[in-house]
Formats: sequence, C-alpha cells, structure tokens
Amino acid sequence: MKKGCPYGTHRVLEPKGVLPQPAEKIDNTMEIYDNEILLDVQTLNIDSASFTQIEKQAGGDLEEIKKIMHHLVDTQGKHKNPVTGSGGMLIGTVKEIGPALEGKTDLKVGDKVATLVSLSLTPLVIEEILEIRPEIDQVDIKGQAILFESGIYAVLPNDMPENLALSVLDVAGAPAQAAKLVKPGDTVVVVGGGGKSGLLCLYEAKKRAGVTGQVICIGGSEKSLQRAIDLDLADDYFVGDATDAVAIYNKVAELTDGKLADLVINCVNIPNTEMASILACKDDGTVYFFSMATSFTKAALGAEGVGKDVNMIIGNGYTKGHAAIALEVLRESPGLRELFTKMYA
Amino acid sequence: MKKGCPYGTHRVLEPKGVLPQPAEKIDNTMEIYDNEILLDVQTLNIDSASFTQIEKQAGGDLEEIKKIMHHLVDTQGKHKNPVTGSGGMLIGTVKEIGPALEGKTDLKVGDKVATLVSLSLTPLVIEEILEIRPEIDQVDIKGQAILFESGIYAVLPNDMPENLALSVLDVAGAPAQAAKLVKPGDTVVVVGGGGKSGLLCLYEAKKRAGVTGQVICIGGSEKSLQRAIDLDLADDYFVGDATDAVAIYNKVAELTDGKLADLVINCVNIPNTEMASILACKDDGTVYFFSMATSFTKAALGAEGVGKDVNMIIGNGYTKGHAAIALEVLRESPGLRELFTKMYA
Repeated sequence: MKKGCPYGTHRVLEPKGVLPQPAEKIDNTMEIYDNEILLDVQTLNIDSASFTQIEKQAGGDLEEIKKIMHHLVDTQGKHKNPVTGSGGMLIGTVKEIGPALEGKTDLKVGDKVATLVSLSLTPLVIEEILEIRPEIDQVDIKGQAILFESGIYAVLPNDMPENLALSVLDVAGAPAQAAKLVKPGDTVVVVGGGGKSGLLCLYEAKKRAGVTGQVICIGGSEKSLQRAIDLDLADDYFVGDATDAVAIYNKVAELTDGKLADLVINCVNIPNTEMASILACKDDGTVYFFSMATSFTKAALGAEGVGKDVNMIIGNGYTKGHAAIALEVLRESPGLRELFTKMYA
Repeated sequence: MKKGCPYGTHRVLEPKGVLPQPAEKIDNTMEIYDNEILLDVQTLNIDSASFTQIEKQAGGDLEEIKKIMHHLVDTQGKHKNPVTGSGGMLIGTVKEIGPALEGKTDLKVGDKVATLVSLSLTPLVIEEILEIRPEIDQVDIKGQAILFESGIYAVLPNDMPENLALSVLDVAGAPAQAAKLVKPGDTVVVVGGGGKSGLLCLYEAKKRAGVTGQVICIGGSEKSLQRAIDLDLADDYFVGDATDAVAIYNKVAELTDGKLADLVINCVNIPNTEMASILACKDDGTVYFFSMATSFTKAALGAEGVGKDVNMIIGNGYTKGHAAIALEVLRESPGLRELFTKMYA
C-alpha cells in the first residue's frame, strides 16, 4: 500500500505540485493509500451556488443535471464546479481505513459520517445518480469517495435527524472556539448574537463564563434579539447597528461599568463591523472575527489607529472536537434544538 | 477644562457620532480637553500616496502645494487627503499634557515625539509652512496638533538620527509582537525574512527562542536572503516562493524533522501566501499574519480546508511598548543599524 501525503497531494495529476483544491484533475482511483479513508457515498450536499449554476445550465432538466455532474467528476476526479469554484460536502459510510491512521482516528468501519471538507478537493466516483432533490441541493448517489488524513468529518449522531445535525455542523467552528476561549468570570460580547452561529456562541459563552461572568448579546434587529432573549442565552441584550462603532462602544461601556469586554465574538455577516468589535474590547482582550465579511486591513489598521492592544483572531472553521461540541449544544438545550429544527431542519 | 473621549469623538463636528478618522470636519481649536496632549509641530511626514497626489494637483509648484495643504486643514481641521483618504504622521514637541493623563502617560513637557497615529484623524493647525522637501514627502511647519488619549506615539531617541528611528517605528508592531509570542525552545518560521519587518522579527525571534530554539528564514530572493545570512539572524535559510504552499511545507518539514513550526510570522507583502504559512505551522501552533496582502477569507477557509487547528492572528500594528522594542533592536544589533541606515535613513 502506498504512502500518502496528509494533504492529498499524492492524488494531484494536473498541475503537479499544487494542493488538491486548486488542482484541475485528481486521481479518483478507489484504492486507498496508507493514510486515506474510503467512504461509500449516500448523499452529496452540493454547495448552493454550485447547484444553482448547474440547474440553470441544465435548464432545470434533471437528466441534464445528471449528465453535467457525471461530466464534472469524470474529467476532474472530484465535484468542483468550474464556474463557482465551489464544492459542497457529502454523507457516507466508512468502508475502509488506511493502516497508517490506526490510533490517529476515532472512526471505525460502518460509521456514518458527514465530511466537513469541500467536495472541490475530495476524490469521488459516481456510479449512479439515484435521486436529485433540487429544493435542498441534495443528490443521492451510488458511489465512493476518499477522505485524506487532513480531511475533517463528523460522525452523524443517532439521536437527531441528519439535517438538524448538518445545520449546526455547518458553523461548528464558532461555538467550539467560544468554548475554548471563554473563562469563568469573563465579560463576553457576541455581535450578531441572534443568528445561527451567534446563538451557539452565546450558549457556550454563558455556560463557560458562569455566574461570575457577563454575556452581552447584540442583535441587528428586535426579531433576532428576541430569539436569544426567549432562550435566556445572555445577561444583557440590546439592538445595535454593528457598523456604528461609537454607539456600540458607548453601550458596552455603560453595561460593563467602563471595563469593556474580555472577549468579543463577531458573528455578523455584514461589512464594516471591525471597529465596533475592537472598541468594545478592553486592552489585552481578544476579538474573535468569525464573520466572512471581515476585512483584514480594516481590522489591522483600525486597531492601530485607536491604539488598542487587542489580540485579533481569524475565525478558523476547524478546531479539534468542534463537531462534538456543536452537536452537544443541541442535546443540552432543548430550546435551541427546537428553534434550529424549526429554522433549519 | 472639558472631559474628552479617549478616541477623540468630542472633536468631531461633521457628521456627528463617527470617529475622527472618517469624520469630514473636526474641531482643531488648540485648547486641550482634560485627556489630550498639545504638540508644537516641527515636521509633517505626509503619506506618500497623499503627497504624490497633492504634488500632481499642484503641477509640482511649491506655492500651490502650500495652498492645497492650508486649504485641507482649514476646511477639515486635519490633514486628510480627500482623494487618497490617507494622512501621514508628524514630529513635534510636547507643550501641554491634560491633567486626566497624569499617571497614564510617560510623556513630559519638552519631549520630542513622533506620532504613530494618522494625520487623517489628528487635529492640526498650520500657521506657516516653512519648507517642503518633496523628495521625502516631508514638510516643516510652524503649527500645533492634538494627540488623543488613545493616540500612540514614540519619544524620539537621542542616540540615532530621526529618519533611522522613523524607519523602524513604521513597522514597530511586527518585532514587538514577535518578542511577545516567541518562547524559549520555539521553532519559528519567518516568511519574508529579508524585508524590513522580517529582519526585525528574525532578530527578536532568535533572541527569544534561544539556543534550544530554531529560527528559519524564508526569503523571496537570494539577495534578500543574503541580508539575513550576513547578519546571522537565523539558524536555517532558504529561498522559497511563498505562494507555493506545498514546496514551503515540504522544506519546513524537512528542516524540522516533520515537526513543523510553533510560530509562523508572515511578513511578505504579496497575495496568496496564506496556505504556505498555515501548512508550515504545527497543530495548536500560531500563524501571525503581518502582511497587509493577507486575505481574511483565504486564511479562514484555507485552514479549515486542510483541517489545521492553528491559531491565526491579525497583525496589530500596535502593542504596548512596541516603539521601545523596535528601537532597542537598532541599539543591540550594530549590523541591523548599519543596514537600516544604508537602506532607509
């Protein structure tokens, strides 16, 4: 059995030397290297932008969609949409585990998993397309896929519906990072606390900060704020425009007796919210940017401009145990489980 | 004496409620609030993009440049170029310190300082423009300025020329953060180690990692690498293309026996170097992005895509004591002082 690179570069055919994601063609032979995992695929969750493009190209015709999908995988060895550049993820069952992973993985043959790495880098074979569900971008297939050593995944739990589990796995990094960063007694501000990742972060923050801590939820609207209030996820709540740095600063200063926050978690997916997050944080505190609308230069130059010695972290969608932490929230909080079932599952 | 806001919002005239930097007009009355510092200004270091624009608009005529500069300050209360949006910094002498800053600042009346916050947010009055030095974007004036409580500055040292000091103050955040992050025994990779901030980071990294640590310098060219080699700033050196993630990863893995780096400091001002920095770092390690060419989303999604549990930090140009740390490097290392004098002063 051949030795593989943790990042799957051993499967890259064209161009040589790049990572599997940017590669044009990868080797999708379903014979594993020593550090790979073979999966029997049940469902492809095509990235929404990708599926929309394919559907449009096919004129909505299901047989045409199948042809396009087969063509993508036949030519590239993976399901990467050349127009959108995106992939998606998949649900499957573990069929074989490379011997070099022994002691490195908690997976066993027969486990049902969701891969949390993109289809745009995952070696895939589609033998047959069984069913397309266009309304949720899902495609059931008969086929196989390879998970690299560095590929992240979550074992799907038995105690909740698949789509409910997927809805939190999608943003699992945020609550897991909150769980790691928040210490007892901390003052934590969650900007965008009424959204999906915001609610999960609030839950973890309140649990970890404890009775001596203070968790402040900022919502963009009365409606989103009410979701957090109904579930009693914070100590203080207010509606605020996160692009209005001075107003947010003044309100957080008022609620904290001028002490400001030890940790600010930004989960709000609109631009120009960097300064509000920075100003709400005390010196030597931490600002965790989980929003994909964050501008690197606005954060870096913004903090310097106001002389704030804060630790600014780029939200990493992955951290060890992130899936377990996120799924556990739904078990611990019946209220969040009910809300997520209603909203996303 | 009136109480001021640390960020200077008390001086904002139009539009109300914003920070001084985005404001269109600020109050430049040279009567201090209780937490402000009054400076007698000697020299304006106009931001290079701004000066070039003004010079062009003036057709290179010095009297015309003076008129434009006077007009900017008369209408806005600060020297913010409306075309480029940028400011610059200034050199001046402390004339008065607000009583609320007692015990909070180490400044005293008579100290000569360089402000390290932008002129685009600094209340300024120009009484007279004395001399323009277009070749270095410097303008000597008779005038005054206000430093806010949050405004950062450096006391100019007596033991080195002003322009030499300014050349390191410009990037002082990088070596200061390296000094704080590197621990004895650490393996540190500096990407772009041959540039200005890279050389300063290497010096701090080697000093702090010590004899049990390993410092690896990656240069973009033989020429830049040679600068670091000549000064003996690292343990290992190689020329590498920081956009080639796999090649950098393989080389760092080889030099570290597969262990990779505890800390990767990215100082290279070209795009698409996020993945090389992430791959060179071990799990639970830290990647410090100091390059302004860093893409937030490429870093966030890149780390997730390869399942790397690394702590990714947005380089903050400011941290407490950063000016003192950076200036000290030039005192400790005669070689760096000589190089910087030749290159930048």
